[in-house]
Amino acid sequence: MEAINNVIICGGTHGNELTGVYLAKKHNWILANPAAAAVCRRYVNRDLNRCFALTELNGNENNFGELARAREINALLGKKGTDTAPDLILDIHNTTANMGITLILSSKDPALLGISKLIATEFKDVHIYLQPESRGESPYLGTIAKRDICIEAGPQPHGTLDAELFFKVESVVFRLVELVGAWNNGNLPKPDNKIEIFKEMRSIDYPRDEQGNIIAMVHPALQGRDFCELKAGMPVFMGFDGKEILWQGENCYPAFINEAAYYEKGMAMSLAAPAMDA
Amino acid sequence: MEAINNVIICGGTHGNELTGVYLAKKHNWILANPAAAAVCRRYVNRDLNRCFALTELNGNENNFGELARAREINALLGKKGTDTAPDLILDIHNTTANMGITLILSSKDPALLGISKLIATEFKDVHIYLQPESRGESPYLGTIAKRDICIEAGPQPHGTLDAELFFKVESVVFRLVELVGAWNNGNLPKPDNKIEIFKEMRSIDYPRDEQGNIIAMVHPALQGRDFCELKAGMPVFMGFDGKEILWQGENCYPAFINEAAYYEKGMAMSLAAPAMDA
Repeated sequence: MEAINNVIICGGTHGNELTGVYLAKKHNWILANPAAAAVCRRYVNRDLNRCFALTELNGNENNFGELARAREINALLGKKGTDTAPDLILDIHNTTANMGITLILSSKDPALLGISKLIATEFKDVHIYLQPESRGESPYLGTIAKRDICIEAGPQPHGTLDAELFFKVESVVFRLVELVGAWNNGNLPKPDNKIEIFKEMRSIDYPRDEQGNIIAMVHPALQGRDFCELKAGMPVFMGFDGKEILWQGENCYPAFINEAAYYEKGMAMSLAAPAMDA
Repeated sequence: MEAINNVIICGGTHGNELTGVYLAKKHNWILANPAAAAVCRRYVNRDLNRCFALTELNGNENNFGELARAREINALLGKKGTDTAPDLILDIHNTTANMGITLILSSKDPALLGISKLIATEFKDVHIYLQPESRGESPYLGTIAKRDICIEAGPQPHGTLDAELFFKVESVVFRLVELVGAWNNGNLPKPDNKIEIFKEMRSIDYPRDEQGNIIAMVHPALQGRDFCELKAGMPVFMGFDGKEILWQGENCYPAFINEAAYYEKGMAMSLAAPAMDA
């Protein structure tokens, strides 16, 4: 059983997600994108959290803005894909979606699954979301490390601080670090295997016109209902004319519903299914 | 009794306040800041809604970005401070604060007070907020017109659309225009004078350190409680260390609590008092 010794905590990978920005400042954690935080924007040049694929990190083209910062972070923390990489990165994010504390795991690592399940039993409104990544190709900051948890906290409008959420995320991070210690010592409590784990299937975009403009919004009946079941025939979007658009796809559990930052990424929500095998 | 004939409806004065952006697109109203809307930011160069003082509009310096657009809008709509100015501008905004539909009036105009009171009786969660402006000096877009209402709709994270709020604002705008017609015809129903009107007193900033960094957040007990009474001794802020800061000022009714766009403006909330004389 491999110990998880070198744990790195990051915030402000997106400069307008203020829970992580101010937790990083408070605790001298890594403030990943200080330039974006200074102007309270997600990013200045490009999305930092899409810069960490090995091909980008190991290239030397376009070495400015966020890509330069990604290479700097990679050099600072120990290089992705090598023995010097950190054992674990916890990267703190916010979402405008009603996702509570969502622990996003990039692999079915038994240590992190067990620890996350314990967090879900100890704190209210915690979800575990498995988004398997091909580690080398993955563009996310956390994938520098051998293991990572992306902590999504919401709902919180970007550019604001919700005090209750701030202290909740702080408590979750401290408890995660404690539980890593328990894992290392071989005395991690047995997790409750009835805790539901969701696995990402795919994402869907807003309905758009030929010019790419959105022509519908998330339906009021779906707004805020992250991790609730969406079945065929239930309303999913509402046009600007008030026309309802019903879901015609597979039964699923949407997350990141109406996340502000994803309008430009062509994503209205992420669709999940219960992970039967985790 | 002067008729209100020339009514102009604007949205997207701030490019990331999407209710107004998409209502303006839907109805061919004035999309005030299309450049900012294209990149989903409040503004590109400077805040358009701080560009409409007469000295700025009538100057010819710095004629680029938002100030150039302000001068263009002023020329397009009929010039501020002249007979050609519109009779009424309705300017649609969003806020991250829990302000429902707040109708901001820049003067105690009897027509707009009466119309606003009727809106407050017909729709749920409507507030009337009097912010008297010295018209020529006022930097707000609406002050181009002889009268104006700034419609604030929230809570909505900037860069997102809440469908329910979208249709509510649309209905309020349509009803406002109808009631303007009733006023012109002399058959505006008698408003309910028990409707409370708040008047802006002043705003307060977040506690900050010597470098200007915020050192506290809105207290959880105050978050979302716009237009509720704040009395001396009640909690108002909470430091990043969890320390409570109690209100030591006058009894008041805060609004714009934790509005994202106002962190950079040095404003944690606006303080109001009931307007006894309106």
